[in-house]
Amino acid sequence: MVSAGPARRAPDDERLARAALGRLAEPGDPRLTAMVLEEGAVRALATLTAQRRRAAAAAEDAEASRTLVADVAARLAALDPGRDLAEAARIGVRFVVPGDDEWPECLDDLDRCGTHLGRGGRPMGLWARGPLRLDEVVERAPVAVVGSRSSTSYGDDAAGEIAAEVARAGHPVVSGGAFGIDKAAHRGALAVSGQTVAVLANGVDRAYPASHADLLARIAETGLVVSEMPPAATPTKLRFLARNRLIAGLGSATVVVEAATRSGALNTSTWAEMLNRIVMGVPGPVTSATSEGVHELIRGRGGLLVTRGAEVLEAVAPMGQATLPVPRQPQRPEDRLSLHDQQVRDALPAWEPVTAEHIARAAGLSLESVIPALDRLLEAGLSERWEGRYRLRRA
Amino acid sequence: MVSAGPARRAPDDERLARAALGRLAEPGDPRLTAMVLEEGAVRALATLTAQRRRAAAAAEDAEASRTLVADVAARLAALDPGRDLAEAARIGVRFVVPGDDEWPECLDDLDRCGTHLGRGGRPMGLWARGPLRLDEVVERAPVAVVGSRSSTSYGDDAAGEIAAEVARAGHPVVSGGAFGIDKAAHRGALAVSGQTVAVLANGVDRAYPASHADLLARIAETGLVVSEMPPAATPTKLRFLARNRLIAGLGSATVVVEAATRSGALNTSTWAEMLNRIVMGVPGPVTSATSEGVHELIRGRGGLLVTRGAEVLEAVAPMGQATLPVPRQPQRPEDRLSLHDQQVRDALPAWEPVTAEHIARAAGLSLESVIPALDRLLEAGLSERWEGRYRLRRA
Repeated sequence: MVSAGPARRAPDDERLARAALGRLAEPGDPRLTAMVLEEGAVRALATLTAQRRRAAAAAEDAEASRTLVADVAARLAALDPGRDLAEAARIGVRFVVPGDDEWPECLDDLDRCGTHLGRGGRPMGLWARGPLRLDEVVERAPVAVVGSRSSTSYGDDAAGEIAAEVARAGHPVVSGGAFGIDKAAHRGALAVSGQTVAVLANGVDRAYPASHADLLARIAETGLVVSEMPPAATPTKLRFLARNRLIAGLGSATVVVEAATRSGALNTSTWAEMLNRIVMGVPGPVTSATSEGVHELIRGRGGLLVTRGAEVLEAVAPMGQATLPVPRQPQRPEDRLSLHDQQVRDALPAWEPVTAEHIARAAGLSLESVIPALDRLLEAGLSERWEGRYRLRRA
Repeated sequence: MVSAGPARRAPDDERLARAALGRLAEPGDPRLTAMVLEEGAVRALATLTAQRRRAAAAAEDAEASRTLVADVAARLAALDPGRDLAEAARIGVRFVVPGDDEWPECLDDLDRCGTHLGRGGRPMGLWARGPLRLDEVVERAPVAVVGSRSSTSYGDDAAGEIAAEVARAGHPVVSGGAFGIDKAAHRGALAVSGQTVAVLANGVDRAYPASHADLLARIAETGLVVSEMPPAATPTKLRFLARNRLIAGLGSATVVVEAATRSGALNTSTWAEMLNRIVMGVPGPVTSATSEGVHELIRGRGGLLVTRGAEVLEAVAPMGQATLPVPRQPQRPEDRLSLHDQQVRDALPAWEPVTAEHIARAAGLSLESVIPALDRLLEAGLSERWEGRYRLRRA
């Protein structure tokens, strides 16, 4: 999947600085995000390093303790980004940063949409494992399919079907590698040999949950496993929340299948909204707690109701393409009747045939207009005639 | 329920003319609707009678056979509206017409919204049976609850619950007296001694389906059974379709619970849209054919997704009243933590207690900021301390 031509790579000091910064603060730390946005990664790291030297020289005071440098001082001392990159490469993990060909530029939107959810901003970089290229993945309008970890088999089936249909049409399926809907989505894509990307809150060399080791290994073989956390990192609640913005940001659309009223999947959809991505929800029984969050998403937050993959494809297709036909049951001959002829048909008896005069009286129509209508009904196979009398013909 | 004060009644000739015209053409016949809108009922009847005399004198020609008068000639000869009214009164059925106190003026909207669906317009009048007054019913913002005749028990339950909740709040429940969702809606209202109105495609003295005789009798005892068709009239396909506009017109909102992609319930919701009434739909499993039409209504036609009666009440309440709280699961103490303190909590071990220094390192935060955070976590009951070491406290 590696494209031909001279590869564009970010400078080494940029990659090293970003690997270092990614280890320093928790993902999406608004202080570090703002600093990197203003100064760039290389200068931000230099600034923090200089601040730490000054702080170590001076006595630490209460104010300093609240600064980013105070928080990250211990980690700053232990950094060795060169070793991190070398060890990652040894286990087949690359670190993709802005400036690389492979960098998915759609994630830059994260720097533009603010940090209303507390944690935000573009990640320092993405640790990636797998044969796909991130830039090529995001060019194919990926669809994020997310939902409850404690899904029902109804939700799993719906997520799997939608993921399979979306992947079959060439759109990568992005999800979080978790129990429930995430697993069903990844599996749906894998089942049709489609592309799928798992975005983790822990290092891409670790399986969380442990029982998904096989699933994640399969994804890494044909798709991609990515994380902003370096290899060996463990997941925390904050890391899961920060991770959700990456799923939303990598997807051109997010489909929520089953979610309780407060759930990680809804957090992902909130990110998707803030990023101006399309947000969709798959409804379920109103009696199902796992569908409550999805119904709220459609009801109150403008989420598009979708029931199958074709509807998701319609939403992510460029304007005017992939338009769905309005769903219709098969047309029956009686549906093509004019109102007048329907009125005549309504007046036909089911059993004992009657005369045209009788029908005209029953229908409240003139005999002159009823006679040609009876001919048309005969022709359409909707009535029967015996010795000048008519009755309904049933299918 | 009859209100005090001098009753306003339409003139007798108006009532007689409307009873006559209602017998002449099928409900919503656009030719008669237009004629009455232009000339009024009394003059329209006189015009048709005169036209018939002229047509009988002249030889009927092909063109004349297409006119309204040609269609209704036979019925015109047999009219006896005075007898119709007297016989209706004898069996406890009244004929309510525009100009009466009891006339539900919201139905006048039907004359304003065109006849895009082929049959339309305000009915000539409504034959009514039951103790409620139509004008008082429509003042209480009735809610139409309609849906599939071949509903599932899921749909029946949802319709019954919503109807009960809506009726309990004082809104009459309007439906069509049919199998399935209609029956469940009427029953839901009756179960809480609420008001319910059945709008039929046949005479209000007839039960269709026959097995609903008891249900319709119960509705007539405490609520209302109405129809634009005179007593003894039988239902036809066209009459069902015309009837749907009355359900939509009497409701301040229409809720569709289960409907296939082409169904009478969707026809009712189309009327409701044209009448600028609120249209709502109750979603169901995407695997259920009986929910397909509802999903299409929400997806493509702007129908509001509702899952329970409270949401219906919110939609029909005057602006600013009956606002629902945003659904939330109960707040847990950890949800009130600042991002900083969440980060500290994330770093707490589940089993073996560790020192504050250890936690600061794991969290990537300064010791100075971690120590007060650990105090706050202890206070909130989210952590435990033994001999200066901390661990997570689980609920």
